[in-house]
Amino acid sequence: MEALNLQRQEAPLRRLMGPGPLDVHPRVYKALSSPVIGYLDPVYLKVLDRISELLPPLFGTQNRLANAMPGTGSSGMEACVANLIEPGDRILVCVAGFFGDRIRQMAERQGAEITVIEEDWGKPIDPARVEAELKQGSYKLIALVHAETSTGVLQPIDDIAQLAKQYDTMIVLDTVSSLGGIEIKVDEWGIDGCFSCSQKCIGCAAGLSPITFSDRAVEMIKKRKTPVSSWYLDISLIEKYWGNERVYHHTSSSTLNYGLLEALLLIHEEGLNKRFARHLKNHKALVAGVEALGLKMLVDQAYRLPTLNTVMIPQGVDDIKLRRYLLEKFRLDIGGGFGRLKGKVWRVGLMGYSSSADNLLFFIPAISRALALQGYRTDLAAGLDAVLAELDGNGNEFTALQEKAAAAGA
Amino acid sequence: MEALNLQRQEAPLRRLMGPGPLDVHPRVYKALSSPVIGYLDPVYLKVLDRISELLPPLFGTQNRLANAMPGTGSSGMEACVANLIEPGDRILVCVAGFFGDRIRQMAERQGAEITVIEEDWGKPIDPARVEAELKQGSYKLIALVHAETSTGVLQPIDDIAQLAKQYDTMIVLDTVSSLGGIEIKVDEWGIDGCFSCSQKCIGCAAGLSPITFSDRAVEMIKKRKTPVSSWYLDISLIEKYWGNERVYHHTSSSTLNYGLLEALLLIHEEGLNKRFARHLKNHKALVAGVEALGLKMLVDQAYRLPTLNTVMIPQGVDDIKLRRYLLEKFRLDIGGGFGRLKGKVWRVGLMGYSSSADNLLFFIPAISRALALQGYRTDLAAGLDAVLAELDGNGNEFTALQEKAAAAGA
Repeated sequence: MEALNLQRQEAPLRRLMGPGPLDVHPRVYKALSSPVIGYLDPVYLKVLDRISELLPPLFGTQNRLANAMPGTGSSGMEACVANLIEPGDRILVCVAGFFGDRIRQMAERQGAEITVIEEDWGKPIDPARVEAELKQGSYKLIALVHAETSTGVLQPIDDIAQLAKQYDTMIVLDTVSSLGGIEIKVDEWGIDGCFSCSQKCIGCAAGLSPITFSDRAVEMIKKRKTPVSSWYLDISLIEKYWGNERVYHHTSSSTLNYGLLEALLLIHEEGLNKRFARHLKNHKALVAGVEALGLKMLVDQAYRLPTLNTVMIPQGVDDIKLRRYLLEKFRLDIGGGFGRLKGKVWRVGLMGYSSSADNLLFFIPAISRALALQGYRTDLAAGLDAVLAELDGNGNEFTALQEKAAAAGA
Repeated sequence: MEALNLQRQEAPLRRLMGPGPLDVHPRVYKALSSPVIGYLDPVYLKVLDRISELLPPLFGTQNRLANAMPGTGSSGMEACVANLIEPGDRILVCVAGFFGDRIRQMAERQGAEITVIEEDWGKPIDPARVEAELKQGSYKLIALVHAETSTGVLQPIDDIAQLAKQYDTMIVLDTVSSLGGIEIKVDEWGIDGCFSCSQKCIGCAAGLSPITFSDRAVEMIKKRKTPVSSWYLDISLIEKYWGNERVYHHTSSSTLNYGLLEALLLIHEEGLNKRFARHLKNHKALVAGVEALGLKMLVDQAYRLPTLNTVMIPQGVDDIKLRRYLLEKFRLDIGGGFGRLKGKVWRVGLMGYSSSADNLLFFIPAISRALALQGYRTDLAAGLDAVLAELDGNGNEFTALQEKAAAAGA
């Protein structure tokens, strides 16, 4: 056998401005190295209880059931789908991007009878099409994505939520790229299953999936005719650990949950409204800068997702080469396009701790320089002016990399 | 709405000697606060590759497919069960404890036709009973637990492995409490699906599940007639991210995987044989000490699990009261019994970094004192003498709590 390589490997410092993961606040890094503690330790159970108190205001809900699933955002997606759908259930899935389609795939595996409303990537779902489907036949559930990470579209929910109420249909909503950065109104919209991730706008490490179910969803799950196919994601089992019974289900990761608690404290210390306003302001400043450079956004202004910006790649520019250059020379990580948007857009994330003036003022010169290297000229001064004008001399609450470097002991 | 409690909450230092989580090495704590990095960053992909190189020697395999699932040990259990079983498959599940029964429950949800071989909790499965079942009918798969965390039994595998070969039956093996502390021989035994957790004997934080599949298992999964019911745990999808294709599946937690890499480096720096010997020596010393105190072990000597020791609770001793006292006064966390062993045994874990002379020398006086408070007298001097005699003045490679306190900045 070949000798094993036992060299230590340190993580390099990046500036994370892609679709996720995004940069993490130094206080979260500290929390992630909290002493490990038992999953039934009375002190640790309080951590889980506090998470279940601090999450509902982000979701905009009074739901009794709100905590974090022991897996990434996709585990939360599957928890919603697998718990709420039984074989043969008629469901309506709205697909206008990669993650809408992921919901469809998961629902298929649960044996659902699926009707898909497809829309072009970069456009929102048209409520009129939802209404047309709901009129035609009765559906148990509509599944859709609030913030489509693959396209940069923020789906307006009010109309569809109204229709779901009118036709007595449940809703599953993906808020992976919005929770903690954009207002969510689970109760007002009447959402029955809503999930997100612990990273992105929340700002903890990846590995947990904040989730909430409406009381009627919990009741429905209890009355299922068939068991949930996944034991690991069966909310009736996990709920017995989160709730007062404290029945062992899995070894809850104190590492990730102390990180999540710290991230939630940071969110509430900032204040939800101030936080949402910060995300919006930095998004507008980015768009102003990008457009002043002569680049175009994929999504119409009315549907742009403040947390994830899809910038069109100018014709003739080599996507891979440009992103490699940014990573190597600027240690800047932005995302490429997914699926049918591969090679067509960049995905620039401004979420949580990463939604900062510091990041904007770094990104504009970096992308301008990278484009110039490929012979694509931009007016950098105009780009920076546009960003600064939007920021109005403010918005730099965080100076990301310095604190990050300090936290990592670099 | 009531005002939210925004007070910071620090994790207290415990001495973790239960069934898990166990204490974590300071270098792992440091790795857990590594700068977050993108799941497709070339530097990060090397981390995943190195994990897939460092895990196989622990599993005793040359399998191409070995890495860590994005969930706790139970997610690995369900990944094995859900990927290898299709509805209607005939499978044999050996149940001699809580986790054998968990496998049974998961298999049931996959629609398997299940035959259960039950054994008393605290006893191993008798190979003769396995043979009797295999003779009667053809089974696709036998599922069993190598190290039953609920009973403290180490299941001998050689005979059963031989039978599975003879009757051309696949094997799924749970090594949650053995991988990294006890030798595993996946290739020699002919195991097709083997899973563990990132905590316990591995010594990282909880949240990942090391897993490996034999090549024939991978082929079989590719030829399934029905899709795997769980998208999140579908190994054919995850494999495309772990392998050269690097197809996005989930946002791999760099936090947990840097921690896992560091834990694996610590294991290989110590050396597997030395590590297994350390676990065995400390186990023997614990048993010697416990018996010298006049306490009894649940499991016969031949089948005792070195990593998890089930000590019988003497009649008249209040389990809950005793463990609360240990936690409050000695900040020592040991486990209670599960299911039908509730109130009957304590579960004392000596795994990974926690398998240390330091912990033994702390535990014996602590339990002796706690018993004395309930009027149960033990000969503490004899207990300590027995431990020290077994340790032979050695075995204290780690001085756990001091380093742990230093790492946590306490």
